[in-house]
Order: sequence, then C-alpha cells, then structure tokens
Amino acid sequence: MTELKVVGKPFPRVDAQEKVTGEAIFGTDVKLPGMLVGKFLGSPHPHAEIVSIDTSEAEKLPGVHAVITAADLPQSDQYDPGSRAHAVLARDRVLFVGQPVAAVAAEDLSTAEEALARIRVEYRPLPAVLDPVEAMQPGSPVIQHGKAGTSAEMDIHTQQAAGVQTDEPGEGGNVVNHILFEQGDIEQAFAESDVIVERQVRMPMVHQGYIEPHAQTAAWDSKGNLTMWLSTQGQFVTQETLCEVLGLKASQVRVISTEIGGGFGGKASLFAPLTAVLARKAGRPVRLVLTRSEELQAANPAPMVVIDIKVGARKDGRITGIRAKVVMDTGAYPGAPMTVTTLMLGQPYKFTAMYIDGYEVLTNKPSVTAYRAPGGPNASAALEPCIDMLARKLGMDPLAFRQLNAAEEGDLQPHGRPHPRIGLKEVLEAIEPAWRALADKPKRANGRLRGRGVACGGWGGGRGPGSALVLLDPDGTFRLVTGTVDLTGSFTSLAQIAAEGLGVSLSQVRPHKGDTATGPWAPMSAGSQTTYGQGPAVLEAALDARRQVLEYAARELDADPDDLTLTDGRVYVTNDPSREISLSRLYLLTHGWDARYEPVVGRGAAPRRSEAPGYAASVAEVEVDPETGKVVVTYLATAQDVGQAINPLSVEGQIQGGTAQSIGMGLWEELVFDERGRLLNPNLLDYRQATAADLPMIDAILVNVPAGDGAFGLKIVGEPSIVPPIGAIANAIADAIGVYITDYPITAERIWRAMQDA
Amino acid sequence: MTELKVVGKPFPRVDAQEKVTGEAIFGTDVKLPGMLVGKFLGSPHPHAEIVSIDTSEAEKLPGVHAVITAADLPQSDQYDPGSRAHAVLARDRVLFVGQPVAAVAAEDLSTAEEALARIRVEYRPLPAVLDPVEAMQPGSPVIQHGKAGTSAEMDIHTQQAAGVQTDEPGEGGNVVNHILFEQGDIEQAFAESDVIVERQVRMPMVHQGYIEPHAQTAAWDSKGNLTMWLSTQGQFVTQETLCEVLGLKASQVRVISTEIGGGFGGKASLFAPLTAVLARKAGRPVRLVLTRSEELQAANPAPMVVIDIKVGARKDGRITGIRAKVVMDTGAYPGAPMTVTTLMLGQPYKFTAMYIDGYEVLTNKPSVTAYRAPGGPNASAALEPCIDMLARKLGMDPLAFRQLNAAEEGDLQPHGRPHPRIGLKEVLEAIEPAWRALADKPKRANGRLRGRGVACGGWGGGRGPGSALVLLDPDGTFRLVTGTVDLTGSFTSLAQIAAEGLGVSLSQVRPHKGDTATGPWAPMSAGSQTTYGQGPAVLEAALDARRQVLEYAARELDADPDDLTLTDGRVYVTNDPSREISLSRLYLLTHGWDARYEPVVGRGAAPRRSEAPGYAASVAEVEVDPETGKVVVTYLATAQDVGQAINPLSVEGQIQGGTAQSIGMGLWEELVFDERGRLLNPNLLDYRQATAADLPMIDAILVNVPAGDGAFGLKIVGEPSIVPPIGAIANAIADAIGVYITDYPITAERIWRAMQDA
Repeated sequence: MTELKVVGKPFPRVDAQEKVTGEAIFGTDVKLPGMLVGKFLGSPHPHAEIVSIDTSEAEKLPGVHAVITAADLPQSDQYDPGSRAHAVLARDRVLFVGQPVAAVAAEDLSTAEEALARIRVEYRPLPAVLDPVEAMQPGSPVIQHGKAGTSAEMDIHTQQAAGVQTDEPGEGGNVVNHILFEQGDIEQAFAESDVIVERQVRMPMVHQGYIEPHAQTAAWDSKGNLTMWLSTQGQFVTQETLCEVLGLKASQVRVISTEIGGGFGGKASLFAPLTAVLARKAGRPVRLVLTRSEELQAANPAPMVVIDIKVGARKDGRITGIRAKVVMDTGAYPGAPMTVTTLMLGQPYKFTAMYIDGYEVLTNKPSVTAYRAPGGPNASAALEPCIDMLARKLGMDPLAFRQLNAAEEGDLQPHGRPHPRIGLKEVLEAIEPAWRALADKPKRANGRLRGRGVACGGWGGGRGPGSALVLLDPDGTFRLVTGTVDLTGSFTSLAQIAAEGLGVSLSQVRPHKGDTATGPWAPMSAGSQTTYGQGPAVLEAALDARRQVLEYAARELDADPDDLTLTDGRVYVTNDPSREISLSRLYLLTHGWDARYEPVVGRGAAPRRSEAPGYAASVAEVEVDPETGKVVVTYLATAQDVGQAINPLSVEGQIQGGTAQSIGMGLWEELVFDERGRLLNPNLLDYRQATAADLPMIDAILVNVPAGDGAFGLKIVGEPSIVPPIGAIANAIADAIGVYITDYPITAERIWRAMQDA
Repeated sequence: MTELKVVGKPFPRVDAQEKVTGEAIFGTDVKLPGMLVGKFLGSPHPHAEIVSIDTSEAEKLPGVHAVITAADLPQSDQYDPGSRAHAVLARDRVLFVGQPVAAVAAEDLSTAEEALARIRVEYRPLPAVLDPVEAMQPGSPVIQHGKAGTSAEMDIHTQQAAGVQTDEPGEGGNVVNHILFEQGDIEQAFAESDVIVERQVRMPMVHQGYIEPHAQTAAWDSKGNLTMWLSTQGQFVTQETLCEVLGLKASQVRVISTEIGGGFGGKASLFAPLTAVLARKAGRPVRLVLTRSEELQAANPAPMVVIDIKVGARKDGRITGIRAKVVMDTGAYPGAPMTVTTLMLGQPYKFTAMYIDGYEVLTNKPSVTAYRAPGGPNASAALEPCIDMLARKLGMDPLAFRQLNAAEEGDLQPHGRPHPRIGLKEVLEAIEPAWRALADKPKRANGRLRGRGVACGGWGGGRGPGSALVLLDPDGTFRLVTGTVDLTGSFTSLAQIAAEGLGVSLSQVRPHKGDTATGPWAPMSAGSQTTYGQGPAVLEAALDARRQVLEYAARELDADPDDLTLTDGRVYVTNDPSREISLSRLYLLTHGWDARYEPVVGRGAAPRRSEAPGYAASVAEVEVDPETGKVVVTYLATAQDVGQAINPLSVEGQIQGGTAQSIGMGLWEELVFDERGRLLNPNLLDYRQATAADLPMIDAILVNVPAGDGAFGLKIVGEPSIVPPIGAIANAIADAIGVYITDYPITAERIWRAMQDA
C-alpha cells in the first residue's frame, strides 16, 4: 500500500448521530418484560463484624421478589474473597463504608428502598485504618489476609509491569504486594550528584468520572443460562468474571454490552455478579443502576498514593539516580496499579542508578481499580516537579534539561528490558515551539501571577491479540464485525482500517458489534489496546475479503486478480476501467440461487503485538490569583507520539480528554473521607470535576514515530495524554508562585497557604 | 474421517427446553419501549376500483399515531406492483377479499380496531373471476397486466425448474406464465399403448398451517435505518425484500429473526414492509401480529390447481407417454409453483414421451406462495392414481409396476437434464415389506372397508452456498455462528456436523444465530436447503478451527499436528495421551494477555452444491365407513432417501410431519370461497387441519444413497415426504371403495357420493 486514502483522514464518529439524538441504548435503557429494580444496602462502618442480618421484614413487603445476603452467593472453588470482583456481598465482615451487605429486587424503586430500610444488620465495629502509611505500621488493625489480587481489568492496564521481580509482601499485615526495582549503586549516584531534590508527594483517591454510572441487567433461563446486558468496557472479560464468581461455564453466560457512557478503566463487571444473583433468586430479570452517590461511594476509584522521591543530577545537566518509595492505598481489596507507578518513575529518563520500591496497602476504604493510565499521573505528579527543580537548581531550561536526559530506544527500563523505539525526544521537540512561545510573556497579568510548566511521560499499553470479520453486503458495501466495545470512536477507526485495506471509502464499511455468543473475540477496551490490538486483525480480515472479491471478479472479467482495482461499489481492470463488475452483482454471484462462488467472508485473527508505548509531553500556562490562590489554566498543549493517527479527529479528542482529566486531577479532584471512613463529597457538587468552563482549548499535537507492529504503524493512543499534564500544571504553578506544592490536588487553599508560608 | 461419532446419532433438539418452557422469544413476544399496535383494513370486495379513501376520522381518534394508504408507500423504481411482496397496500384497485387497503398504528388494539372502523373507503365493484379455468377464457375479467412474478421465497423452492424453456403467456389475459415440456412423440406413444388412463384432478387452495401467525415489529432510527424483528424463514431474504420495496440499501436495514413457529414456505417478509411503513409514519416502533382469521384470509396460501392428465402403458408393464395440462390458480399476483408441478409430473418415471404444459393464472383470490415441496403434492395427487390405475388395468402389483418404471440416474427429466443419482428404486424397495405386510389383511374390518395404497415422488431442493464460523470459547467448548433460521432442528444438525468435524461431542458445540448485521450470510430456511447448503460451510469452519487448535497444541506439546487427537476439552498426543493440553488453556494462549497465538476463528464458506433430490415412497392403509364415507388412516409409512441422516431423530420427525401434512391435504384441508370471493372458513374450527388424533403413528424409513456433494453424503430432507402420501391415501381409498376420486380433499362427503354413484 503506497498512499493512504482513508487512514489518517479526519472523520466524525460513525455513531455520532445516535449519540447526540439519544437514540443509542445505554445500560440504563435496557428494558425487559417483568424486569425488577435492584438495589443494595451499603455498610455504615469502615470495619465491622457482621453479627447477624435479619431480612424477614424486607421479604414480607409486597412487591419484593428477592432479598439476598452473602449466604445466597455460590461457594464455588473459584470464589476468591481476596478480590473485590469476587466479593459480591460482604461475608462476616464489612471492610469499607458503602460496601454492599445485602440487596433486594423489587417491583419499583421506592419498594426496593423501603425493603432496604427494613433489613436489620447487627454490626460489631472493629478498629479501622484509613491511611496506607499507618496501615503499614506494626499494630495497625489487620484488614484481611489476602494474596496480591489480580483483576482482569487491572491485568490489561498493567501489562507493562509483567515480568517484574516481585518480592514477598513487606512491612505490616496490610501490605499485599511489594515490588523493588534496583539498578546500579544508588548511594554512589547521589554521592556523585551536584544537586539533589527530595520530597514526599501525596495524592488522594479520585473517581474515573464517567458520565454513565454502572448499569446492568440480568436474566436467567430455565436451563440456568445467564444473559447480561450492561455498560462495560469488555464483553468477554465480563463473561470471564461472571463465570469465575458464579461458578458457571462460559457457554452458560452471554454478555451483551450496551453503549457505554465512559469507563476510563473503571467499568467492567463490578456489579454484574450481584445483579445476576438477585435475578436468579427473584426468578425475574433485574436491572441495577447506581446512583451518582453510590458510584462515588461504592464503585472502584483510583488509588491514593504517598510517594517519597529523591532525584539527583550533575552540573553537566545529566540526571543521576532516583530513589523512591511508593505506598499505594488499594482500599479494602488488592488490585491497585502500584507496580505501574513504581515502574513509571524510572522510565522517562536515563537514570544512572535507581532504587524504587512500592507497597500496595490495604485500608478500610473502597477498593480501587484502573483509571486511564493507572498509576501514571501519580508518577508524573511526583517525578516531574523534581525534574523541574533540578533544572532550576542547575540553571537550565526545564525543557532542554528533559531533552538532554530523555530515555530512548535501548535504554534499560526499571525491569531491565530495553525501551523499544519510543517517541519521547520527538514529542519534546514537538512541544518546544509552544514552550518557547510562552517564554517571553510577562510574569503578571491583570494582577495575577503567570507561570509556565512542562512535563513528559508515557504509557506502555496493552498489546493483546484480536479477531475480526469483513463480509460483503447485498448493496456492495462491507460489514465489519467485531466483539469490540466502542468507548472512544474505535468503530470509526477500525472501519477506516478496513476501508483502507479493501480500497474503498469509509462510507462503504459499516462496523457492527457481535456479543459473546455471536461476535469474534475482542480484547477489553482498556489499556489503549483496542485499535492497536484489533487493527491488524481488521486489516487482515479486509485483505482476506478483498482477495476473495478480486478472485471472483477476475474469473468474471477473465483477468488476473493483480490487474484489478477494487473501489467503491465495483471492481475494474486497472488498465481498462470499462471492463468492470459491480460489487452488488458479485454479491449475487456469491449468495443465493445464482451463486457461482462461495460467500465473501474475510477472516482476521492477529497475534499479540510487540509493545508500542506512547510518550507525550505537555506545556501549561497558568494564572494564579495571589489573593485567593485560584488557578486558571490559560494554555495547555499536549504533544503525543501516536505512530500513525488512524482518525486524527478522534485522536485529538482523546488527547484533549486525557489532558482535561489530568488537569482535574491536578487541581480539584479528591474523594474526601472523614475519620470514620465516610465519604464527605458523594455528589458532583462537592466532588469537583473539571468542566468545559474550567479549561482552555487544548492543543493536541500529533507526532508520528511509527510502531513496527501496528496496523499502518499506529501506536496506542488513549492513555498517554493523561500522564504529563498534571506535572506541567504543578510546574507552571510553581513557576508562578515560586513554591512546589507537594499535596494534590493543588487547590486554591493549598496555594494560598503555601504563598502565606513562603 | 472413518467412523462417524456424532453425525448419524439421534439427539434431542438443543433448543428443546426453551421451546417447551415458553422461554423462547417468538415474533409476538418482541416488546419495544413506546411500541404501537399495527392493524390493517382488508378489502370486502374480490375486485373493485378504489374511488376514494377518507382517513380523517381515524386520524382524529386519540391514541392513533399513523394511518396509511398506498399514498404513503414509496414510489421507488424498485417497486413492482406485479408482485404481492411489493404490493404492500392496494393502489387504485383491490384484487381479492381481505387485501390490505389501509393500516393504522395505535396505542392499543381496541383503538386500532376503532380507527379501522372509521376509515371510509369508496369502492366501485368490478366483475371478478375466481376459477382459473374461467379466468383463461376470452372475455373473462382481466385482473392485471403483470409479468410473471418471482418472489425470493418461490425462487428458492423452484430452483429445480430453472433452465426450463418458458413460452410467452398463452391463453387469456390472466395467464402470467406458460410452460411446456415436450419429449418424444406423444401421439405415437399413446398409439403404442395397450392401456390408457385419462382424468381431470382438482385441488383447492390450502394454508401452510404454521402454528404462529405472521408477527413483525419495526423500528426506525433518526438516520432512516430500519430494524425489524420478525418470525421469518430467512433474515437475509427479508432484508432484500425490504430494500426492494422501501427503496433502501442493505446497509440501512437490519433484520433480526425471532424464533419461528413454523413457516413451511409461507413465511418470509409478507407483512414486513407494511409494518415498516406504519412505524416510519408513526415515528414509533410498531408491532403487527395477524389473527388466525387474517392469516387464513390475507396471507399467501398454496395454490388451487386443475390438472388434465393422460398416461399410457404397454402390456409388458412399461409406461409410455404422459400428456398433462396444469392450470394453476396463483390468486391476485403471480408467484405460484406451476412450473414445479409441471416438471414433477414427468420426473418419477421412464416416460417414452411427454407433453406437459402449464398455465399460471390470475384470479381474484389471495395470492399464493410456497408450501413444503410447492406443487409437489399436486403432481402426486394427479399422477399417482393414474399409475395405480394403469397397474390395475395391466393386472400388475402397483408397487412392482412402479419399481419397473422408476426413473434412475441418467434418465432425462422433462427439462432435458439427466437425473443425478437418485434413490427412487431404493425407497420403493425399502417400502416393500410394509406393502407386503398389508397385502393379506381382510378387505373388511368391523364393517369398514379396508384398502392399501402406494405412491412415490421426489423433490429437487435448494442447493445454495453457505457460510459459518466456529470459535473457541474460554471453557474449551466451541461456538458455531451462522445466520441460519432454525425451523426444523437445523441448529442441532449443524452443531452435530461441527462436532464431527472438530472431533468432539455435541455438548461441546453451541450454535448461535447472528442477524443480518452480525451474522455470516445464510440461505433462507426453505427448499430443504438449510443443512444441505450450510452443512459443508459448517464442516469447513469446524475443520479450520480444528486445524488452528492442533497447530497451536502441536507447538505447545512439541509434536506434529498430525500426531495429535482433539477431543472433548483437550488435545493429546495420540500415541502418548499423557502429553496433553486442555482447550481452556489453549484458549488462554490465544486470547488476552498471555496470548502466544492468535484467536481461533474457524471460517467456512462453501459454494453452491450440485442437486441432491430426495425421493420418497409411501404406503397407506385406510378404513372407510361405507355408511358415512369417513376415512380413518390406520397405517402410514414413508421411506425417504436422505443420503445420510445427520440427526435421525429430527429427520424422522420431518418425514412424519411431511406425511401428516400430506394426509391433511388429501383428506380434509380446503380454503372454501363463496361466489363473491369471500373465505367461508377463516378459522381453525371450519378449516380442518390434521391433528394428532387423526393420525396413526407414522413409520419413517430412512434410506441412504449418499449425495456426492453433501456434508457426510447428506441430501435434502424437509420436503420430499409431503409428496407421495397424498397419492398413497387416494390409492388406498380407491382400493377400499373401488373408485378413484378426482377432487381433493377426498372428504367423507365425496366418498359417500362416489359410492352412491358407483
């Protein structure tokens, strides 16, 4: 293929109209005959024994069809209480406020709520621990004796850390995972350093902030087969979890994903088993949709983290060693991306030595899971201000300092494997004009303090296999069938890849989703792997369909397939376009009574890819009100190496979205718990997400360092853009006010206090 | 493959439980939010001009969301008013009583009925003609000037007749199709005959008798895309018709078939366009379900036919010539299987000469379509008593006479093509013990007259291409995905073929249906072609999946794929079964993070098959009450050449079902019209179908003359069994009462009258 015709061109999403008109069916739109409303009762205690649960009054209420507790759950061998996904309802003990203890299925919501109010649970409160550093101390209440858990969601996001040496859990009974990356002699490195920066950074739990709460509907048949419709990032991974938790075989579980209003790593199957058990006991379909408050209290946010970090550099501008200790609060169940944060601290630069260890620690808070480049913004928030401070101490330009020290192909990563071809230097170069343009602006504007900051970082990303089908339709267009969940415009990008492979326009390819019964397997839409992993399978299916079409056309036109051109609606002899056959005619020749050939069925199945990390760099400008500490982000640009943008419009949108979330995490977002483990801001008035009004127009700069193994050289796209902006914002604020603030989010109050202290 | 392990073994249907528990979703079970009820207004006249339609009062009724007439139909170029499928609502003229003239969509049924009552249609009645022989006469009212219509359904059933020489329409303005098969010198043949039989046979219109009436639901999106859920024999053929009638592209129409409560050729897309137009005008989903009375009055039954037939034979027992004239009443639109009846009259025997012509004639009755071996029972009902009478005249055993004259491979069929390898002689041999066993029974029993009869006949059947997928699931089982509608247990048979190809048990393969968006193309489940056409594609997909599984297992086991055995749940080294790998492990190695290989996606696409006609022979015993003429069928056996029964249980069921319908057609069934074209028996009390209480246990005898081109040698199965029983019953009655009755059904009244006359 020489010149790209469809790939690399901007297209609106093929499903844009359904989305904006409200016609698309999301999780909460699923309606089944006889469907009941599901609702669960959350624990009021952060840690307590369950002495007894009396559901008799709830069961007596007319309109209540099922009341379940842990006693109704299967006790299968598969059941792993060390994993939140497997802990459908609290058994014997509650471990965080809001943890589901019992659930009901009723005719309507008010009956369900009344039934919950009638459930009597007797608790015996236990000492709780909420801070991970405290939880590591000897004498801390021990939450549970579990092994390091794995969840399918997290696996996909943390593939990068695979192969890493994992020690036995370290300090304290609540440490479920300990990791250490050691290279070179760290003491020697610091001894040889001319400047050293050392600090402790704290970041709170934040929520993934998807618009649509968890919504799932379950129905059973008399054979004991389960069908679930839900808003999930992965149909096949949800099927897998349901099988594990409910002790079912894959052949008994059909998962049909609805449209999904965002997931960002947080939406797989969390409440699916609970809904399924309710439906089984009720003998009726049950739909369970979380309220926003339940989402914030009882879903699985991103972890809180405490990072002690020390980095050195020499006068010649070379970074030396890094020492860091990551303590990550995984809440009540294992599954935090601690290894990723640990790994990422050592990835972006040419460190001469490193000693980075991490602890995943249980606390009596909601358990956590992935959130877009999980652990990545944490690493950026800790590392990037240090890099900035070193540059300042050395009197170097922060961007030039990064360019000098940026990791490149062949440099060893913390786990000892060399970097593949990454575009870190290229994105730093791409962001340079933006950085320079901000250099000469006055440091004050309308009484506000102005600052600029730069940061960089990357993300390894998933790289699973894929499968796809491309079929010829009666009107001479093509169908693309995958089992992919479209979170971010993937269907449009995959259809572009198919169109490019076929040689036709995008309008000639329609993407369709099969489910776990009818669709070819697809990876979870997570870990930025969707287009990267599925793209080669889609391309293969398209080329396979094209080969079949050309073969049959060649026989009809008495020509060689190599001498033919496939284009919109027809095939013609390249050197004599008057010799042609329409694709709708070819359809007739491959289907039905007039068939001379077999139906066109393009098959694509592609193996796992090599890693294609995406690196990004951001430049931010902020204005700080010295009276109030209020920050306005006046400029933000993120440059990202995407290898080859399949659809620049959606890639830019992804970069803008990741950047916006990173800003929100940097400036405002925090799940605030009181001393009894209760969430103080379980609503979107008090939990402050970034809104369009808070943000400047974000410049997305696409850099193309092709991946050898991606379709058309594409790399992973979704996650890298959330990594650097938080560091760039922190550095810009420091540039404005002269202080590097160590606690995130960098709220107006913290800025004001820091300025008062300075 | 040496020994068959799954194919050829009897299995209950994989979907039996869903069906018997009522869980299966049929057409009428579809419920969509905001769905309206559709209802149409039928014409009270058999032939009339529509002067005006006033819908204003209906539109004013609260709860009415749409009222449509032909003015609301698209006037696309595709629109062919010469086809019933395209004549959604009467335009300018009504052509039969019950023809839809207008339709409404309303909140509920009673509102819809009230709205219909408020529609004022002014008609100007025109002379009508109801009998096809009259309709051929000069001066008969001319119904319309159309060309010979084709419907997708009928195409599939009448593939056998393709390639036949078709003359221009012959006598009268209502003849839409005329065909002539001529071989040898017919006058010479009769001149050389020692015995000759000549008679006229009449058979009425009958209904296909499916349990579930037409049921269809339509929904449009704002882009103008249509989705339809309906009880249909073919998803892709319905999509095609909707596109033609509504002027849409295939990419705009998604068809999702529900479970189907029978079709027998009569259920494709008849009311789908009407429902779609209603839904478009209403701006809401609409479901239209016919009442039984509407089914009988306004659907598309099997045609009425008048056959003049003359057959001769020599003293040596050799049949000589056949002359026949078939006049088939196609109702108000073309589409009757006249060519098939014409063809089949000349097929079963070694005629030395033939002159068979046929006329398809319009009348002011409901238009017709396929009904299981369409036209076949008509041919049998006309021909087989003639054969019997010749045998009797020659003093020969009717079975031996047939054996002597039965057509075989190489004999020329009426259209000049030689018979392929057919099993006619073999089924006649197979039925012989049953025939002999009845020979010595007394001719009277408890005052009733006893008789036995034999007949034979066959059916060419469809032979379209197919496509299918076989995918490996997490639990080590396999999914079979097709676009096939399962009418008769096809999923079970296809799953058996897949299991046999894979080398596993049937329990390890689950069939699933994709729709026109997600499923690979499948032929309409009609023309007995489902298992015959799809089987090879399913087998190919299974072998492709097996090849992939063995390839990956070979790499894991360090063995050669040829040295491995794939069995339930695992692959092992044939000579050392301790070296093995489970299929669930192999799944992990082909999916997700641990993938070493690409996902297992078995692809099957098979071209059109060669013809594999199925021949059958039946023996019947009846007892006739001489006082009343009442007939009791005391014994019936049908032997059929099925090539290779994939699932003997379902093949036997098919043969029993076809035989039962043939008996019903022979003895009781008739749509009775009055002189004004009104159906006098539009309900199942007055329209007499065969019930279980009417029938003996039917013996099904399977004969295996393998087809070279079928999977495992299978031949078409569904239709042949309906062909001979009607002839065997007629001959048995004649044997009992001594009179061959020429008018069907052979009711008690006709028998009584014939006995009085004799």
